[in-house]
Amino acid sequence: MGFWKSLFSSSDVTVPPRKTRTQEYIAALDAGGNTSSSARILFSTDRELDLYELEELCDAVGWSRRPLRKVKKAIQHSFLVISMWEVRGKRRRLIGFARATSDHAFNATLWDVAVHPAFQGKGLGKALMKQIVKKLRSEDISNITLFADPHVVDFYRNLGFIPDPEGIKGMFWYPN
Amino acid sequence: MGFWKSLFSSSDVTVPPRKTRTQEYIAALDAGGNTSSSARILFSTDRELDLYELEELCDAVGWSRRPLRKVKKAIQHSFLVISMWEVRGKRRRLIGFARATSDHAFNATLWDVAVHPAFQGKGLGKALMKQIVKKLRSEDISNITLFADPHVVDFYRNLGFIPDPEGIKGMFWYPN
Repeated sequence: MGFWKSLFSSSDVTVPPRKTRTQEYIAALDAGGNTSSSARILFSTDRELDLYELEELCDAVGWSRRPLRKVKKAIQHSFLVISMWEVRGKRRRLIGFARATSDHAFNATLWDVAVHPAFQGKGLGKALMKQIVKKLRSEDISNITLFADPHVVDFYRNLGFIPDPEGIKGMFWYPN
Repeated sequence: MGFWKSLFSSSDVTVPPRKTRTQEYIAALDAGGNTSSSARILFSTDRELDLYELEELCDAVGWSRRPLRKVKKAIQHSFLVISMWEVRGKRRRLIGFARATSDHAFNATLWDVAVHPAFQGKGLGKALMKQIVKKLRSEDISNITLFADPHVVDFYRNLGFIPDPEGIKGMFWYPN
């Protein structure tokens, strides 16, 4: 509980001094002590992801495989891409991911929210979502939407997402 | 009925010979005969809209006013913008609008679908939606989503949109 709750207290959040064009750490969290060998959780908005590493995460979550060419295009054209990493010394492992499409003004829609099963139940999904909402709010997006599978509706509800507000229905069209 | 049904038959669809950088007519429909004084319905993907004219349409539909600066930004950053016009001789009037955000690969989400009340009940909303779906499909987008107000759920259902498919819930987050 304190694990992710402490994430946003200023003393625990580390923002590296330099920000490159392709990489931006938005928060880091000590997850097990202060020695260099302990694990830290790190969030990044870098889009230059190893697509095979991302595919490994999506496989672990149980998603259907998608052409990497299209995944790359989708990442390039998303408004926000956030990845979550476990960092041990110099080694980092992709353990979470989410992205949002947006009109840069009013609405954003979240897609592909994933937390590696081995890291679920630790509050990391919540931490990831809070990073996303914080980032979108900082961009003045006020309407954040998503389409939730039935088993995660309560997860999002606990984060303040409302299903079918005022009777508004999420609807899908697929090719025949 | 024949009004919009005929829209997609090749003999009725007129594509102007020239396509400029900012303007693209995707279909035009004779709505009342063949003389130059009769009305035609025209679809455009031109983003260079008169924002006051768009605001007039949104007012007529009964939507809350939004800052034009943000509307402009949202239009610029939408994947697809479609406007629908009544054309009489040289005069054209904005009677419909819709836009979509997208990751350019998998998903698109429709926003701000509007048909002027004076032009509702003529099948023009359907025609507009069919243009949008056709355009998105031509861009290889397979998952088209939207959030429907309760009174238009059946309208979209008739067009093949499915509410809550497999229990997937549309959810919204607003600032406190």
